Parts: sequence; structure tokens; C-alpha cells
Amino acid sequence: MRIVEIIEKKRDGHALSSQEIKFWIEGLTNHTVEDYQSSALLMAITLNGMNMEETTALTEAMIASGDTIDLSLIHGLKVDKHSTGGVGDKTSLVISPIVAACGGKVAKMSGRGLGHTGGTLDKLESIPGFDINLENDAFVNQVNDINVAIIGQTGNLVYADKVLYALRDVTGTVQSIPLIAASIMSKKIAGGADAIVLDVKYGEGAFMKTLDDARELARVMISIGKNLGRDVTALLTNMNQPLGFCIGNALEVKEAVETLCGHGPKDLEELCLVACGHMLVHGKQVDSYEAGYQKAKASIEDGSAYKKFLEWIARQGGDTSVFEDLGAFTHAAYTQQVYADSHGFVSDLKALELGMASLHLGAGRTKKDEDIDFKAGIILNKKVGDSVSEGELLGTLYSNEPIESRHIEEFKLAFSYTDNALETPQLIADIVS
Amino acid sequence: MRIVEIIEKKRDGHALSSQEIKFWIEGLTNHTVEDYQSSALLMAITLNGMNMEETTALTEAMIASGDTIDLSLIHGLKVDKHSTGGVGDKTSLVISPIVAACGGKVAKMSGRGLGHTGGTLDKLESIPGFDINLENDAFVNQVNDINVAIIGQTGNLVYADKVLYALRDVTGTVQSIPLIAASIMSKKIAGGADAIVLDVKYGEGAFMKTLDDARELARVMISIGKNLGRDVTALLTNMNQPLGFCIGNALEVKEAVETLCGHGPKDLEELCLVACGHMLVHGKQVDSYEAGYQKAKASIEDGSAYKKFLEWIARQGGDTSVFEDLGAFTHAAYTQQVYADSHGFVSDLKALELGMASLHLGAGRTKKDEDIDFKAGIILNKKVGDSVSEGELLGTLYSNEPIESRHIEEFKLAFSYTDNALETPQLIADIVS
Repeated sequence: MRIVEIIEKKRDGHALSSQEIKFWIEGLTNHTVEDYQSSALLMAITLNGMNMEETTALTEAMIASGDTIDLSLIHGLKVDKHSTGGVGDKTSLVISPIVAACGGKVAKMSGRGLGHTGGTLDKLESIPGFDINLENDAFVNQVNDINVAIIGQTGNLVYADKVLYALRDVTGTVQSIPLIAASIMSKKIAGGADAIVLDVKYGEGAFMKTLDDARELARVMISIGKNLGRDVTALLTNMNQPLGFCIGNALEVKEAVETLCGHGPKDLEELCLVACGHMLVHGKQVDSYEAGYQKAKASIEDGSAYKKFLEWIARQGGDTSVFEDLGAFTHAAYTQQVYADSHGFVSDLKALELGMASLHLGAGRTKKDEDIDFKAGIILNKKVGDSVSEGELLGTLYSNEPIESRHIEEFKLAFSYTDNALETPQLIADIVS
Repeated sequence: MRIVEIIEKKRDGHALSSQEIKFWIEGLTNHTVEDYQSSALLMAITLNGMNMEETTALTEAMIASGDTIDLSLIHGLKVDKHSTGGVGDKTSLVISPIVAACGGKVAKMSGRGLGHTGGTLDKLESIPGFDINLENDAFVNQVNDINVAIIGQTGNLVYADKVLYALRDVTGTVQSIPLIAASIMSKKIAGGADAIVLDVKYGEGAFMKTLDDARELARVMISIGKNLGRDVTALLTNMNQPLGFCIGNALEVKEAVETLCGHGPKDLEELCLVACGHMLVHGKQVDSYEAGYQKAKASIEDGSAYKKFLEWIARQGGDTSVFEDLGAFTHAAYTQQVYADSHGFVSDLKALELGMASLHLGAGRTKKDEDIDFKAGIILNKKVGDSVSEGELLGTLYSNEPIESRHIEEFKLAFSYTDNALETPQLIADIVS
């Protein structure tokens, strides 16, 4: 087998065999295939696509390129949840303790944020003392004991994905549904998930710009799951504005705590309850989605979800006393209230721009391993559909560095207005499985 | 400007600006653009194409990436000839002295062979003493004195082409008409040509498999020429069988000598005369193609072409006494006559396979800088359309290493037969400018 012939085959629009895909990914892993050959093949895949057999074979080859996590010592079905990434997305912090409180097993590996999207690990590390590095035994024991653990992805999980992602990022080959699907599914399966609930986001602030693209990505991931024996449910959700009101690490933890205590933003709460409903079905804690949804809701109302959250955070070394005064927990050296200089109804609240504004305030990284300011971020006071009068508060910026006028301008530019009232946009467009 | 955005633009099917193309080629040359980025862009170009403005800009950027040859000290118009590469193509050895004998200026840089196609430099070096390395002054003086010189390409001519070609070869991006056109035209223009006659080959043994593809490649090269002020004429010629009867270095020199002396194969002679006719028009030695063709023909008949050949070879240090006994000149330690074990009419004589058979006998290289056996090769006794009886001589194999049965089999496999007589295939399908 020769890599050039494999590239030519895909260039000419033919399907690759699983042997050919395996040959490529093994070559990429042991460096017998050069990066410039992989990038040519990635471009050919981006332009000519891959069918389901190819995409499944790619997922399998990627799983085999690194370590896989054996969660068989955890009793019960492990149901993972994955979001394709958004601004203000703190759902993992809410969903994990709810599912755990309802008897589900959440053994989750998460990533750090890069660019305009935040990462669950960074949010957790804004809690003093929280440790994201657990040895495998400790990880397994914790899930068996208290049903929930979230840790950093181990170094060698899906090695090929790291190489491919780094290449795709600099060669214009990020936007490919089979490549995105294989990347996500290989990590979830290598991470030991028996079933997966996906939150596939679409809109300006997401990888998938349209609902159709999100539906196609979901379809491909569900098919990969089917082919590899994992049940998958996908929510198709709108990312045309951030989820909830808070963006930034400590600020998002605060909003997650509020949601677990029953007084969070309605869009965030609803999305979490729907995801939990499906996760509890997959985990066999309930017989129907409706029962799962109600069980999740009850765990908020009776306080068991928040109690589980505190137990989890404490078990991983986090100082839970910080939640007693959320104002102090989210205190930043500088805050800046921003007022409207237009009026009307908010027609658009660009998530990407808000993510970048939050990044520039210190909440994110432009490069790997950069330090971040856990207190930096944004609290929104207005969302799409809200009426705004001139001089009304649009939001507050938080940072430990002085806030400059460019930050204020950037924040304001995320808002568009219209003269006419509009309906509140639907958050969950569809649920597919 | 960012290379990722340029790649994405081409991925999405948009035309690149000349500034963007220049940015890429400069980046490739000074290593600020990585090979894996260039190969992704090459694949996007291969699949989405380039319009004429882009292809012209690419040619210009490639020319600017290395040295250019100043031939202004040569009096008169410099007309170059280029073949897209074929098996048994010794036309440069015939055309150059004919044009020179007719008063045209031939200041030519040529390449070595790689794979199944031979290179003019290797053929010339099969003549003892012939020196392909002339300093620029000696090159210019020789053309001013005797109208003809052929030398090796200087190291830094079109630097970007060397990088691009090496990448294309291993990333499945050779087959792209704009990339092929820019590669050829940049080298011819950087080499100082005022006008160019192209021999664009099509068929099994050529880069372009069909006449339509050859026509498209010719159209693109003619347009580049127009945009950059060079007159270009293209012959579209059939490479479904080798040109002439001889394949291999010394064997092809022998056939070129025979052609210059008026008793060469008719297909080779005709192609050379047609090309010379057009070159003499471009060089303003004649007013019409017909006059050019006749002038070229006369130079063979009156012996002036062969005289010019001997003068040229001697001037570059070659021992012309070897042409007095062509049998001795082409003598190889081993020869093997191969006889037909079928009968009928030759319907197909696969040039690619014969090129590989000749390579395996020692006449070519599979890697750069490999030594070659100048005496190795093939003399055909039958060509397409010829009738063959069982036991009749198909051809003779030459090598300085023992000839094995696999060589004989490989040679035989290039022949296909049919029961019915067929017309001799047309060599020149069209001439465009």
C-alpha cells in the first residue's frame, strides 16, 4: 500500500477501504506518513467527503492510535455527554451532578478552552483546590463511590486526533463533517462511554453555521455510534447567542451553582434537563425520556443535585466554602458596567464576538498553556428578544486587569437591534437519535 | 495576509488574488509557509482549479522565486521548444540543429530523465566527452557563434518549482492543468525564451490521458504566454506509442543522427519538421509555416542540419567520431532479440510499459542521481498498425547487464494484437496557438 495512491483515490472521489484508512492513521502515528501527505489527504476528504463506512473506519483507526480507558470496573452503564463547543456553555457543571444524583454514572474526561470557547477544566480550576488530575484507580473509585468525576484527558488518548487537529487547524481543513464526527466520537469511545448524548450547536458562534449542517453532523455521529455499538442521542441547539447570562470561568461556575439551586437562567436549565432526561434513559435509570426529565427536575427541587455537586467538588479537593458567598467568589479587581446608547429590541447577540471579548478580558487563551484570569468575563443583562432603552444596563465586564475602551466597544458591537418586538428564539431545534 | 485564509478561500472555490498567490510562493520559498500548508493548497487547487489570472500570477510568482537567465546578449529571437515528456522522444536532438542550420537561435536548458521518460541531458551524455555544464558567458557565446547550445538547468532557476514538484509528486497533486502549465511556462520564461513551441502529448504514456486534456493544457499555456508577452504554438501529439523505433540513450542518439541524415523514422521526422516550421516562424527566419517546414526539410536534404549537429556536439566537447560507426556506438554487452508468439496486427504498443521495460534494462533512473546505462534500451521492429506473424522479430533489447526472462515478458506485454488491419494512428492531432 502506498500513501500517494490513497491520496489519489480520495482526490478522484472514490471511497477508501478500512485497510487504507488504517494504513494512513498508523503511518501518521508512527511518522511513516509525512504531515504534508496527511494535509493533502485531509483537503481531499474536506472537498470530496467520506461515506459512513469510511468515517467509521477512521474513528476506529483513531481510537487504536492511542490509549483507551477501561471503565469496566465501574458498575453500570457509563453515559457521557459532549457539546460541540459554545460560548457560555457550562452545561457539564450542571448535568454531571444531576445525573449522578439520579443514580447515573458520570466518568468524564474534559478539555481546556482555546480561542473563543471555554473549557470545562478551566471552569473547574477556578474553584480553589480542585484537582483535575486523578490516577485511573482514584477516578474509577470516585465514580463507584459518588457517581461522578471529571478529569483532564490523559496524554495519549486518541493520539492521532492531536496530530490531525493541529494539522487541520493550520491547513483550512477544520470544516469537514466526517473529520469532526470521527474526532469527537473517537475521543468519547476511547474514553470508555457506553452511550453518548451530544449537544450539536449551530449558528454564528458554532462550528456548524446552519441547522442543516448540525443535523448532518449529528446523523454521522449517530451512525458511527450505531456501527461501533454505542447508543447516541443528539440535541440540535441554537448558538446564535450565548447560553445563560455568564461568560468566563468563575462567573460560569456561579451560574451553574444558581441553576443547580433552581434559580438559574431558563435556557440553561431547560437544555440541562433535556440532556439529563436522555442520559438517564441511556443509563437505564428510567424507562422513558419524560420520566428522566422529571427525575432530573426533582433533583434540583429537592436539593439532591446541589448536594451531589458539593460532594463531588469536595471529593476532588475543591473548597466548597466559596459557594457560600458567590459575590466574593466572582469578585474581580476591575468591573465595568456598560450601558446602551441605542434603543429597540435585541435582534442578535453574537456569541463568537462575546467569546472573543471575554477572551480579551483575560478569560481565555490564544495559545496552549497560556495562563488565564479565572475572574475575567462578562455578565449579560440583555439577551435576544429583550427590549432595551437608551442608558439601560447591557452587561458588566470583569477583569483583574484595567478594562479599556476597546473592551467596551467590542462588547457593544456584539449587539444588534431592531425596532420591532420578536419572538424569543427556540434553543433546542430538534432531538435526533 | 494569512496562509490559512488563502487555503480556505481556494477550498471554498474562490479565485485567489495575485497578491495572495505571491504571498504563498514567497512563503514557500523563504519557509514561512509550511510544506503541509502548501500541500493542502495544492490539493484544493487540483480539485477546484485556477482561472487564467490566477495561473498567470502563479507563473509570475514562480519565475520570481529563483534566478532568471538574461539572454539579451544573444542576437535575435530565442525560440524554445518543450515536450511534456514521452517515451522515445529524441526530438530536441533533431530539432535544435535543424533550427540552428536555418539561422534560428537555440539556447536551451534541458533536464534529466526520471521514471519512464528519458531526459535530453542523459541522451547527450551518452556521447563521450559531451559537457552539459557551460558558464553563462560560454553559453551565450556559443549560441552567438554557432546558433545552438543545450545545457543543464542552473540550480536556482524557478526555485519554487523544485519545491512544488517534490511536494506534488508525493501528495497526489501532479494531475492539475494549472499547476502543470505554470511549472512548464515558468521554466521556459525564466530560461529566457522569447517564443515557445510546445509538444503537448496525450495518451496512455503521457501526463494528459486524452486529447481534450492536452488541448486544455495547451490553451492554458498559450494564455499564460499571451499574458506574459510570449508567443506560443502547441502541437497536440499522440503518445499512445513511442516516437520512432528506439528507446534508450545511445539508441536514441543513433536514431536522431539517422533522422538528421534523412533516413530516420517517418513519424519522428514529420513531428520534428512541423515543430521546426513553427519555430522558424516565431524566430522570424521565415514568413510562413509552410516556408519554415520546407526550409527545415531542405536542411536535412542538403546536409546542413547534420553538419550543424556535428559542429554543436564538437563545440561542447563531444567525440563526433562515434557517429562514424553507429553499430559500435550503440553496442551493449548483452542483446536479446524477441520474437512474436502471436499473430495479427499490432493494435496497441503501450509507451508507458515500454518506458518501464527500458528503465528496468538500465536506461533510466528510479531515483535522482542514480547511474544509468547509456547503452541500455530497446529497438522496436513493429509499431501500431504493422502486421505480425508468429516467430517474427518484435524488437531487440540492449543492456550491459544480463537480460532476464522478466525483461522479455515485460517487453512482450506492451504489445496488443487484433485480427483486422487498422489505419496507422495520426501522430499530430492538432496545432493550436
